[in-house]
Amino acid sequence: MIEKELEPSPYFYETIALVTDFSDGSPFAGIMKGVIRKINKKVSVIDLNNFIPPGDIKTAAFEIDISADYFEKTLFVCVVDPGVATAREILFAEGFSNGFLAPDNGILSYIFERKKMKLFKVDRRRYAGGRRTTFDGRDVFAPAAAEIAMGVRECLAERFEKKIKRIILPEPKIKNTEIICEIIYVDSFGNCWTNFKACKHKIKKASSGGISVTKMSNTYAPSGKNVMLYNSFGFLEFALPDGNFAEKYGIKTGMKFKLYPLSISPLERGRRKMDPLSISPLERGRRKMEPPLNLPLGKGEK
Amino acid sequence: MIEKELEPSPYFYETIALVTDFSDGSPFAGIMKGVIRKINKKVSVIDLNNFIPPGDIKTAAFEIDISADYFEKTLFVCVVDPGVATAREILFAEGFSNGFLAPDNGILSYIFERKKMKLFKVDRRRYAGGRRTTFDGRDVFAPAAAEIAMGVRECLAERFEKKIKRIILPEPKIKNTEIICEIIYVDSFGNCWTNFKACKHKIKKASSGGISVTKMSNTYAPSGKNVMLYNSFGFLEFALPDGNFAEKYGIKTGMKFKLYPLSISPLERGRRKMDPLSISPLERGRRKMEPPLNLPLGKGEK
Amino acid sequence: MIEKELEPSPYFYETIALVTDFSDGSPFAGIMKGVIRKINKKVSVIDLNNFIPPGDIKTAAFEIDISADYFEKTLFVCVVDPGVATAREILFAEGFSNGFLAPDNGILSYIFERKKMKLFKVDRRRYAGGRRTTFDGRDVFAPAAAEIAMGVRECLAERFEKKIKRIILPEPKIKNTEIICEIIYVDSFGNCWTNFKACKHKIKKASSGGISVTKMSNTYAPSGKNVMLYNSFGFLEFALPDGNFAEKYGIKTGMKFKLYPLSISPLERGRRKMDPLSISPLERGRRKMEPPLNLPLGKGEK
Repeated sequence: MIEKELEPSPYFYETIALVTDFSDGSPFAGIMKGVIRKINKKVSVIDLNNFIPPGDIKTAAFEIDISADYFEKTLFVCVVDPGVATAREILFAEGFSNGFLAPDNGILSYIFERKKMKLFKVDRRRYAGGRRTTFDGRDVFAPAAAEIAMGVRECLAERFEKKIKRIILPEPKIKNTEIICEIIYVDSFGNCWTNFKACKHKIKKASSGGISVTKMSNTYAPSGKNVMLYNSFGFLEFALPDGNFAEKYGIKTGMKFKLYPLSISPLERGRRKMDPLSISPLERGRRKMEPPLNLPLGKGEK
Repeated sequence: MIEKELEPSPYFYETIALVTDFSDGSPFAGIMKGVIRKINKKVSVIDLNNFIPPGDIKTAAFEIDISADYFEKTLFVCVVDPGVATAREILFAEGFSNGFLAPDNGILSYIFERKKMKLFKVDRRRYAGGRRTTFDGRDVFAPAAAEIAMGVRECLAERFEKKIKRIILPEPKIKNTEIICEIIYVDSFGNCWTNFKACKHKIKKASSGGISVTKMSNTYAPSGKNVMLYNSFGFLEFALPDGNFAEKYGIKTGMKFKLYPLSISPLERGRRKMDPLSISPLERGRRKMEPPLNLPLGKGEK
Repeated sequence: MIEKELEPSPYFYETIALVTDFSDGSPFAGIMKGVIRKINKKVSVIDLNNFIPPGDIKTAAFEIDISADYFEKTLFVCVVDPGVATAREILFAEGFSNGFLAPDNGILSYIFERKKMKLFKVDRRRYAGGRRTTFDGRDVFAPAAAEIAMGVRECLAERFEKKIKRIILPEPKIKNTEIICEIIYVDSFGNCWTNFKACKHKIKKASSGGISVTKMSNTYAPSGKNVMLYNSFGFLEFALPDGNFAEKYGIKTGMKFKLYPLSISPLERGRRKMDPLSISPLERGRRKMEPPLNLPLGKGEK
């Protein structure tokens, strides 16, 4: 959600968190830190993730969204930017004690869905003059972040008037007694996160092509057996304890799985209390839906 | 060694060192840093290694042990924790100017062998309430580390009464004139560290299956020739200068090698002084043994 | 360029930037940070790149050279050191607000080409006594860096009298109407940097074996088509937008490409102003050459 108010806050950020696709096999994140420290020696710079797959805006958007609430007074500097050196704008979004500096390429879509923020256009002429090089991370993002973090707002003179780019996280779909969900994230353990979040609902079976998961678990056990569990961010995920689910089955984001939920009796519905976890990222927009509650009742249920 | 004394020290840690299997391709270590900084902005957080192979408790235990003496006033936060969300406890061990926060899964075994420490159970209810999620790194380790580092000890109310889990580093075995050693660590250069530590003893030959190493060296030379050397932590290792020994021969931890030492004359024994290096990690427990000195004498020796 | 003056400056460094080939899958960079912090808690340590390919002095030299100008009051600690434990010296070079601690193996060659610096030999006896282990990063570089950064100069007593080791960055060669350039760096996106820097000169075509690049671009577009562009450090590079040029064509550093430039009319020559970008690293030594200006004129030109 974007607020209309124009003025940026005279706010200080104590931490800069980098989200890039530079990978550690490059000096580029280090160079950004050098530029930041030339201007602002007080801010702490941490790497949220410099290993976003090259140009993978969706993964970056997702990681920013699930991470942001665990930080405060932090400016996220998001340089997954395949459109670098084109006319795309650089945006500064401000809200809920954290700020975000990012290209206008959809990378802030998910966080915008659930956070109220003010939006500004960064005036790149302050840093790079008329030049457009292929390393705005160094030439614009780093000096702008250093200044914004120390309360300097000169680069935010212009209002951002255009419509920002959006990417949309797919939602699970209900089809008769099945739920069609989609893999939206594969983590570094090979656990495959779906877009299905409804922590109280038991799933009998999940399947996709020849892959089948029938064991619902709360832990990464039993060893060697496919399991599904609601993970620590509230998403239903598939895992292979002591193994790598994604690698074993060649899972990529975008793959669809069918979920067969246990049906829920009306009594159970009334009892159901909101799990505090489910207030975590992405949930708000989706809460209206709550797919399993709308499922046709199973046989023998009232 | 675990001390009986109950009270934790009112001690401050200036550094938190992370040891995890998250890998940099994930935002999880970054999220832990966000949580730590929300509570404690003074402590410096460094990554000792976030690339422990997934769930590899032995490698983590080994790296913690060989690294700890190079730090001071440092709290090691060890999140290689395949049992996350099960009933396993989270421990805090305190001693010799450093502290350790780790699951009770054996990860502190090697450091316990040679350091006197006080041991406490972390009360997870202070942080996660009744919840057990699959990311205790974020929900328990990070806030507990932040508090412990700043001298807050409220989470350490309970005494740890159970027997802690232990893993045991295999010891080299003497068999006639041979020593059977084992690969216990493969470093990022592909150098293969054995469990044999006795810096003054020359080895004529090491072999395993078709692999043979006959050149003893002090440096990573000559190029392209298998060498063995006592490395900077005192362990005998195999290396392929300008190459990768582990990759070339498919070496994994657990593989056994036979060592054929030069025999040592009685005269030499008397002269032998303790090498300062050999007081480094893992040595103390093992010093009683000193295998080569007990070897049968070679022909022609008195 | 090496200055004759002997005395090191009583200078403080606020940042230490690590350049190593340890990779993150090891605790070695972390151990260096532990040693540094034992001695000097004020200096900030950042990772410029700990993923230099093992022993790849050329890549390290190149990254140091292109990065250094983006830092200030920074001591670069360069531990790509296949000759560790041999008699090679450890050098400290000081100049232009930054300093460099590195083995005498050529790793500072490129930065020496364009920066005036004072050169000292580090007295390793201050740290490691008579010992030469295989981890000077921990035993010499880290404590020396910590001390030098805080203004302690005791380890710099000895003048470095020998000739330092040099590696030479190959220069592009002109051959009739072609320019023969060489791949000198492959970045983490798979973009292949050549040694050709002359930002104003259009290239009609580049080729090597069956590989052909005919599209000159300013951005990483169009998707899926080979392009060449002068990158943000001034080098001509080949890229595959939304792909990986190096991977697709198996490019390694050292591979040669032929460039076919658009010829330049005398009028154009007069107009040509120096691009500010071209004053960036490596340019100074090379500026005398300016290959395209010396090309034979094309047909129809005066």
